[in-house]
Amino acid sequence: MDGYPFEHRVRVRFAETDAQGIAHHASFVVWLEEARVAYLAAFAGGYRAIRDGGIEALTTAVHLEYERAAAFDDVLAIGVRCAEIRGARFRYEYAVERDGVPVAHGWTAHATVDAATHRPTRVPGWFVEDVLRAEASPPLPAATPEASQASAAPRPPARR
Amino acid sequence: MDGYPFEHRVRVRFAETDAQGIAHHASFVVWLEEARVAYLAAFAGGYRAIRDGGIEALTTAVHLEYERAAAFDDVLAIGVRCAEIRGARFRYEYAVERDGVPVAHGWTAHATVDAATHRPTRVPGWFVEDVLRAEASPPLPAATPEASQASAAPRPPARR
Amino acid sequence: MDGYPFEHRVRVRFAETDAQGIAHHASFVVWLEEARVAYLAAFAGGYRAIRDGGIEALTTAVHLEYERAAAFDDVLAIGVRCAEIRGARFRYEYAVERDGVPVAHGWTAHATVDAATHRPTRVPGWFVEDVLRAEASPPLPAATPEASQASAAPRPPARR
Amino acid sequence: MDGYPFEHRVRVRFAETDAQGIAHHASFVVWLEEARVAYLAAFAGGYRAIRDGGIEALTTAVHLEYERAAAFDDVLAIGVRCAEIRGARFRYEYAVERDGVPVAHGWTAHATVDAATHRPTRVPGWFVEDVLRAEASPPLPAATPEASQASAAPRPPARR
Repeated sequence: MDGYPFEHRVRVRFAETDAQGIAHHASFVVWLEEARVAYLAAFAGGYRAIRDGGIEALTTAVHLEYERAAAFDDVLAIGVRCAEIRGARFRYEYAVERDGVPVAHGWTAHATVDAATHRPTRVPGWFVEDVLRAEASPPLPAATPEASQASAAPRPPARR
Repeated sequence: MDGYPFEHRVRVRFAETDAQGIAHHASFVVWLEEARVAYLAAFAGGYRAIRDGGIEALTTAVHLEYERAAAFDDVLAIGVRCAEIRGARFRYEYAVERDGVPVAHGWTAHATVDAATHRPTRVPGWFVEDVLRAEASPPLPAATPEASQASAAPRPPARR
Repeated sequence: MDGYPFEHRVRVRFAETDAQGIAHHASFVVWLEEARVAYLAAFAGGYRAIRDGGIEALTTAVHLEYERAAAFDDVLAIGVRCAEIRGARFRYEYAVERDGVPVAHGWTAHATVDAATHRPTRVPGWFVEDVLRAEASPPLPAATPEASQASAAPRPPARR
Repeated sequence: MDGYPFEHRVRVRFAETDAQGIAHHASFVVWLEEARVAYLAAFAGGYRAIRDGGIEALTTAVHLEYERAAAFDDVLAIGVRCAEIRGARFRYEYAVERDGVPVAHGWTAHATVDAATHRPTRVPGWFVEDVLRAEASPPLPAATPEASQASAAPRPPARR
């Protein structure tokens, strides 16, 4: 996805829909987190590396704008970029698309705290370096449709 | 709650916590919706009245800033006000507190659409009137402990 | 509710519905937990008392049979009884009704473990006594509309 | 997985954990549904084919036994088999494993109803045939570790 070094895919679960027949708006918040975790796994040793370092990353803000409804079983591509890291704070930006059509976009803000004391603590240096390197790189090679399908659920194409 | 004509209470469910030992940030999005629904039930005939009128209210944006963590079994008070109604759009603002201490605040934006065609349709006049009346009124009388419980639980049938 | 010493009420959230227009079946699992927590708060010092004693109660089985669909905004009454306590294991039974009409019933099984070692540890004696006393008692007085609301919302602090 | 013609993989989301530091027991109910949907996509034209035929499949029972805790970021393999189809009813069985070690097992029961009238209606013949053929077949070829990783999230291996 243009402008995003990383792309994660989710398939809308039936449990994530609501009585309007579309994906519930709170589901997107969970998907952004899953995309963020996948970004960290790809570029910065994973969220577990952060937690293993005695640090927790708290979410301090969520902002989401919904452009189109998503439906059950839709495969959504989520572009992720780390837009800012400063002291004990960092910020992610996201774009959610279905087949190249915008569905939603937004950002989340985070603060790193010491897991024991819950006091703010600077984002670890290795994390900053890994993220800067990721953001400076060209995007990961565009996934083929089949591979991207595979990302949300291993299944042969439906035949009916 | 100062500046809010309506207050709704929720108790944090165990299922709403996460491995950081606190309420997951996506849970707040669900609570704001519950608070909004309770506001509508108190002032505007309930969300069902809107749906019964062949109208769906879509959520077009969510913005949340988290100030303090909430824990399992915490009782949170959510102040709700309708900050703007214009054409087919309206907007709610919220403050979340625990024992008078700020936990989070935010806003949500909504658009009314025809349930059948999904085309934008003006917010119904009776809805606007009910909400304006609610917002012009003094806050509902400071809730006694028993009455405040009412907001999270069975309410008398809506009047429409 | 006949045969249940305790009754808890929930109101179906919009986020808990799915594209079939009814409450998603996984939502019931969360409601049973909320009802169990409310039962513990009413009779046995609350779930926090258990956790404060260095014990975690794990869920080892869930069984649910769905008789009727529940819809958005429905108020459901959940009857709860502790059907068995033996060693490090206990078991709850539930009936879910809407206006006296059965919606679902089921049971959950639990094991108490030491929070630090995660080894099975006997259910605390005071817990057994409190629960036996609760189960031997007549049901809590038929709730007035106001009082029944209490079960879904702010409760006075537990006595332990 | 032995005895299951189909296997689906999920990666535990952070939002699916709880304050016990493990995956919340209700999350499994959602995963079983996702696995069932993937099974239908692989063998029977997908859940959408059923809904497109004017039929809804309701969940009438859920039974889950938890053997081990699952943690954030765990990749779980879910074996799925359709154990019975009779009239308007069918039943699925599941085993959940992590690296070949049992985590949970259970079953779900379902009824097909006419989407418009909500009256019971026989499971469509093509569905029965597709499922019987699937169940008679050897399991889908065992996924390589890389491919199975891909199923839950497209990500290069973490390097720390």
